[in-house]
Amino acid sequence: MVLGRRWVLKHHFHGHPKPEDFELVEEELPALKDRQIRFHSLYLSVDPYMRPYTARMNPPFTMIGSSVAEVEESRHPDFKVGQTIVLMAGWMERGVVSPDTMGKDSPGKTLGGVMPAPDLGALSKSLLLGACGMPGNTAYFGLLEICKPKAGETVVVSGAAGAVGSLVGQIAKIKGCTVVGFAGTDDKCAWLRSIGFDHAFNYKKSDVAESLKTAAPKGVDCYFDNVGGEMSIAVLNAMNTRGRAAICGAISHYNEVGGYSKTTDILPLCIFKELMVEGFLVGRWAGPRWVEGIKAMAGWVAGGQIKVKETTVEGFAKMPQALMGLFTGENTGKMLVKA
Amino acid sequence: MVLGRRWVLKHHFHGHPKPEDFELVEEELPALKDRQIRFHSLYLSVDPYMRPYTARMNPPFTMIGSSVAEVEESRHPDFKVGQTIVLMAGWMERGVVSPDTMGKDSPGKTLGGVMPAPDLGALSKSLLLGACGMPGNTAYFGLLEICKPKAGETVVVSGAAGAVGSLVGQIAKIKGCTVVGFAGTDDKCAWLRSIGFDHAFNYKKSDVAESLKTAAPKGVDCYFDNVGGEMSIAVLNAMNTRGRAAICGAISHYNEVGGYSKTTDILPLCIFKELMVEGFLVGRWAGPRWVEGIKAMAGWVAGGQIKVKETTVEGFAKMPQALMGLFTGENTGKMLVKA
Repeated sequence: MVLGRRWVLKHHFHGHPKPEDFELVEEELPALKDRQIRFHSLYLSVDPYMRPYTARMNPPFTMIGSSVAEVEESRHPDFKVGQTIVLMAGWMERGVVSPDTMGKDSPGKTLGGVMPAPDLGALSKSLLLGACGMPGNTAYFGLLEICKPKAGETVVVSGAAGAVGSLVGQIAKIKGCTVVGFAGTDDKCAWLRSIGFDHAFNYKKSDVAESLKTAAPKGVDCYFDNVGGEMSIAVLNAMNTRGRAAICGAISHYNEVGGYSKTTDILPLCIFKELMVEGFLVGRWAGPRWVEGIKAMAGWVAGGQIKVKETTVEGFAKMPQALMGLFTGENTGKMLVKA
Repeated sequence: MVLGRRWVLKHHFHGHPKPEDFELVEEELPALKDRQIRFHSLYLSVDPYMRPYTARMNPPFTMIGSSVAEVEESRHPDFKVGQTIVLMAGWMERGVVSPDTMGKDSPGKTLGGVMPAPDLGALSKSLLLGACGMPGNTAYFGLLEICKPKAGETVVVSGAAGAVGSLVGQIAKIKGCTVVGFAGTDDKCAWLRSIGFDHAFNYKKSDVAESLKTAAPKGVDCYFDNVGGEMSIAVLNAMNTRGRAAICGAISHYNEVGGYSKTTDILPLCIFKELMVEGFLVGRWAGPRWVEGIKAMAGWVAGGQIKVKETTVEGFAKMPQALMGLFTGENTGKMLVKA
């Protein structure tokens, strides 16, 4: 008999995620059927998207999310015992899944199913949830394909010390841009400067518009947004004609109750500056291009051009705390849980 | 001695344009220098853009705008007496200009200077300010190059009975789309249906979201926006994944005092629907492409595929009333003044 633990989301979040929204369930795992595998998670991911995504689902359910895991038992010819996989099985410490049918309704099999882990060589497998996984591809494709930064341009990143933002800024530096980041503590800003950001501002202390007058005197060409709300309005106001904004996240709104709050309408601004604002989900690049992103990111990390920081919470029992920490700014770089 | 009349904007508008914002000046015109021409306007244009544009200029100045005119006297080899021209000389009944140096600071020489009128054959020269001029190209390029509608898709147009909106809907029909328009009176909606719009709603009587449930049951793929504000939020909420919005105008905001009013933040919506929202000014297509648009539009108008309506105010003395009428919905189709 093998026991597995998983976290269930009991009801929709109301405001910030709270411990009582979750229940830890321990149960006997079923015996494997044909083409099933049993895994145990090594690292589990918590990401801001989980807050708005679950609002459109029907609780109770196993809390959503991806993990890096090891195959413990296999009745599937493509998966061997001991093999490392990346899968979207939710907050499960140990579980049984059917790789063939998993994730059919997800943006892409690559994101929604079970993927043999790409070989990262000497790099930590935890990166498969960060720089060399979904957040890495979010930064890579979102910046390069939507903002299309050119050398010499100025790129602004909000949520710059997060899993995605910290990568976006470094990719923009590799592409020859001036990079300005906004984050929520002085320590995070110091770290951003240490990894190559030209400017980093603590938005809790500095006015965004004023900061950009200093840091982006020629105006902003590209904006990679993880935050939304009035901070984004201020950045959009500082953009040059034909500027491009990739809208990746809106964490400032996610825990609002009673609908997202109002902000200055950006539509008139879009007209007179001819701005292009595009939201995206990384599943757009699922399929053949997924590995392109992972390989590029892994190359830059291995070569030292991209520095990675992780905030690791120890113990599967602390999954809710890790998620909650995302919204109070407790992570620098990727937040993950070591099971 | 030749007298000329022109309208001066005395100070910035505050709220809606009012008669006392303008002064009609009559003055003796100077004798022509080398490479100058004297013209008299046949038709003058009033357009919503004039309201926000003048807010960024320093009054007093001759009120901005374009006209179709006839050359009365010429010391420029490229312009002959009696020739029809389109020029951006502002609200001048009769004036003297230097074609070589005019409009250097404008989006493009084509828009900002003096252009020999394209030959429209049997069509009215007034169309050079509408379907076969700047509004025509705004509709043509804005819809085709930014929204990129595909046959079978659903296109929504706000300000649909205006100079630009009424053309956008008809171009979308030519391209095989289902077209939904929003306008401000029942009569305008009836006209829109008569020229081929599949659905037209009076936004003063119909809830936008509810209307779209009926008219766009498969969701909205393209949005051509002349209005902004909460109407646009409602349309964006009805869009399909990867929808495209061309932001051409925001007339609902232009007369607001103390900054544009707040609306629901569209950034989270952009993310989860992966929307692309792009503002544009038609000057982007100044230069060689300008004539492409004019020719295409003139061909459709001459061939009857595009129906044109003009609201003509008689008399140069009524320029301010014509402009004011744009913001109270007095025009159907292009609003212009016959001098």
